[in-house]
Amino acid sequence: MTVLTPLITPVALLDRPRLLRNIDVLQRRVERLGVRLRPHVKTAKCLEVARLQRDAGAVGITVSTLKEAETFFAAGFDDILYAVGIAPNKFDAVLNLRRRGCRLTVILDSLQAAAALVAKGRAAGERFAVLIEIDSDGLRAGVKPDDDALLAIGRALHEGGAELAGVMTHCGASYAEHDAAGLERIAEQERERCVRAAERLRVAGLPCPQVSVGSTPTALAARALPGVTEVRAGVYVFHDLVMCNVGVARPEDVALSVLTSVIGHRPDKGRILVDAGWMAMSRDRGTSAQAVDHGYGAVCDSEGRLLDGWFMEAANQEHGLLARRGGLPGVDIVQRFPVGTLLRILPNHACATAAQFDHYRVLDGEGPVRRWERFGGW
Amino acid sequence: MTVLTPLITPVALLDRPRLLRNIDVLQRRVERLGVRLRPHVKTAKCLEVARLQRDAGAVGITVSTLKEAETFFAAGFDDILYAVGIAPNKFDAVLNLRRRGCRLTVILDSLQAAAALVAKGRAAGERFAVLIEIDSDGLRAGVKPDDDALLAIGRALHEGGAELAGVMTHCGASYAEHDAAGLERIAEQERERCVRAAERLRVAGLPCPQVSVGSTPTALAARALPGVTEVRAGVYVFHDLVMCNVGVARPEDVALSVLTSVIGHRPDKGRILVDAGWMAMSRDRGTSAQAVDHGYGAVCDSEGRLLDGWFMEAANQEHGLLARRGGLPGVDIVQRFPVGTLLRILPNHACATAAQFDHYRVLDGEGPVRRWERFGGW
Repeated sequence: MTVLTPLITPVALLDRPRLLRNIDVLQRRVERLGVRLRPHVKTAKCLEVARLQRDAGAVGITVSTLKEAETFFAAGFDDILYAVGIAPNKFDAVLNLRRRGCRLTVILDSLQAAAALVAKGRAAGERFAVLIEIDSDGLRAGVKPDDDALLAIGRALHEGGAELAGVMTHCGASYAEHDAAGLERIAEQERERCVRAAERLRVAGLPCPQVSVGSTPTALAARALPGVTEVRAGVYVFHDLVMCNVGVARPEDVALSVLTSVIGHRPDKGRILVDAGWMAMSRDRGTSAQAVDHGYGAVCDSEGRLLDGWFMEAANQEHGLLARRGGLPGVDIVQRFPVGTLLRILPNHACATAAQFDHYRVLDGEGPVRRWERFGGW
Repeated sequence: MTVLTPLITPVALLDRPRLLRNIDVLQRRVERLGVRLRPHVKTAKCLEVARLQRDAGAVGITVSTLKEAETFFAAGFDDILYAVGIAPNKFDAVLNLRRRGCRLTVILDSLQAAAALVAKGRAAGERFAVLIEIDSDGLRAGVKPDDDALLAIGRALHEGGAELAGVMTHCGASYAEHDAAGLERIAEQERERCVRAAERLRVAGLPCPQVSVGSTPTALAARALPGVTEVRAGVYVFHDLVMCNVGVARPEDVALSVLTSVIGHRPDKGRILVDAGWMAMSRDRGTSAQAVDHGYGAVCDSEGRLLDGWFMEAANQEHGLLARRGGLPGVDIVQRFPVGTLLRILPNHACATAAQFDHYRVLDGEGPVRRWERFGGW
C-alpha cells in the first residue's frame, strides 16, 4: 500500500471504514434495545473518534481518568461519567470541572468514600452527582445488590446532600466467555443484578433515575435490557484479538493495527525480526488464556490481510520476533520478507496498544493518510 | 509523607538519593573494569537523568528510538548509538541527524541491511557509522561470531564506503540468571563472543575499533572485560523487581515507584482496590517466571517501606487489586487501609512502568517535590 511507504515505523494505523462500521453496529444495536449508549472513550482517547460516536447517536461519554474528563470537556463534551471509584485527592478536580459547567458524575462503592464526598460537598457548597457501583460478577469493585451497605450508602449520599443519580455496573466476567449462550447469560446477569439494586434503592424511598451497565461483550450480546437506561462500552470501537476470541468480533473488524518494518531474520529458527516490540504492542497478553493465543499479536501484510499462522511470538522493548505456527514448509523468509518489508500487527488488546502511541495514522481507502492525536496520562 | 498529599494519583515517583546511588555504583564499577559506560537512556527517557549519568562520567548514550536520538541531540548529547537494527525507512532521519552534527551510529546484522545502507550512503554522499550486531545468546538478533556472514557484512560496509566502527552485542539471556556464578558466566560469554567477532574482523583486515557489550546484569557481574571498549546498561538507573530476582539489586535500590490511593475494599476476599491499574504499572509480568512472582508490583507504604506479603494480584486499566500472601491474620483492611490511603507500588520492570507516564515526581528527602519531564513515542 503505497500511502504507507513514507511512514516511519512503528505506527498506530486506524482503518476508518472499519471504525465507522464498528460504531454503527453497536449504536444501532443499543438503540434497538431501547437504551442510550454512553461510549467509554478510554480506548481511543481521541476527539475525532469520540465525535464520530456522538454523531452516530451516542449520549454522553464514559472516562477512566480525570485527564480524559478535562480534555473532552474542553472539546465540548459536557455529560461525563468518571467510572473509577473516586479517590479523595481527586475531589478538587471534580469540583473544578463541575463549577465550569461539566455534568460530571462520579462513582463509589463504600460508606467511607460516601462520607468523604458528602463532607467535601458540604464544605464546598457543591451537590456532587454520584452513581453507586454495583458488583455484578464478584471480580473487582462494587457493592452486591443485596448487601445492606447499598441502602446505607444510598442514604448517606441522599441525606448528605449529594445527588444520588443511580447505579452502575461493569461485568468484566464477560471477557471470559466465548460462545453466544454464555454471552447472553452474562449480559442478563449484569442487567438483572444492577436493576435489582436500583429497585432496592427505590423501595427504600431513595432516588435512582439512572441504571448504567455495560462492557463490549455484554453490549453486543444482550437480548433485552428492561430496567436499564444506558449501556457503556469501549473497545468495540476498535475491536481486537481478545474480542475475536470472545466471539463478538472477527479479524476483519479490527480497526487498529501496528505498522512495522522487517529489520532482520533468524532463518535457523524461522523467525523474522521487526521494529515493533512491546513498547509498540504493549505487554498485554490477553489472548494467552483464550482459545487462540496470538502471542503479542497476529501478523498481516501491508494491506491488512492476515498471513496464515504468523504471530508475534516474543517481544523486547523495540524488537518483535515473528514466528509461524506449523513451521515454514518451503518458505525462504529472507527472500519472502526482505529487510524493509512492511507488515501490520493486530493487537491483543486495543486499549493497551493504542495507549503506547500519541497519535494514529488514519487510512481511508487509498485516500491521504490523516493524523489524529491521542493523549495519555492522568 | 506530607509532601505527597497534594499529588493526584497515580504518580510516577523517583527517589533521587537511590537514583544517584545506582548511577554511582555502576559508573565506578565499569571504570574499575577499565572501560567506558554508555548508558541506555530508554529506561528513563529523561534529560535530567541522562545529565546525572553524564556528570558521573558516562561517555555517550545508547537509544532505542530515533525520537530519543533527536530529543537528546537537541539537548546537547551528540555521541549516540541507536541500538536497534536499522530499517530503511529510518535512513533519512539518521542522515538528517548526522548532517546536523550528531555522531549517530547505527547497527545491523544482515547483508540486506548493509547493502541498503551502503546504497543510501552512496546516493546521499554520507559515510554512515555502523556497528555489526553480534549474537551472544541465540535469543534475538545478531550474526554469530563464527558465521561467514560476519566477514561478508564487514566487507560490504567497509568496501561500500561506510565507517565500520566495530561490533556490539546485548546478552539478554542474562535476565534469566539468578545467582552470582551464573551471572559471571553469562557476562563472560557476552564478552568473549563479541571480542571473538572483533578479532575475526581484524584478522580479515577490516577495522573494528569499538567493542560494545552490555546489559544491567552483565555490567554488574563481569569480573574482567579484556578486549571490550564500552559497556551499555539501562535499567540499573532505576532498578526494579526483575533485577531483584536476578540478584543484582535489592528492593531498597528501586528508585521508581507508583504512588496510588486506596479507592475501595473487598473484605470478603481480603483485597484492596487502588487507582493504579495496568495503565500505570504497565502489563509487564516480568517476575511471573522468576523466584518471587510479584503480580503487577510489590506494595509499600507511603514512606516506601515494603508491606510484608502485599502485592498487586490483578490489574485492570485503572484499577489495581492488592492482596497479601499468607492471608490476613487479624487485619481489618477497611480500618487499616481506609479509602484515600496512599501506597507506593514497586514495578516489575522499570522501563515498562516509566513508559506509562509523561513525567516523574522527584523526591529528595523531605525537600520539595520536583517535576522532571519524560517522553515516549517514535
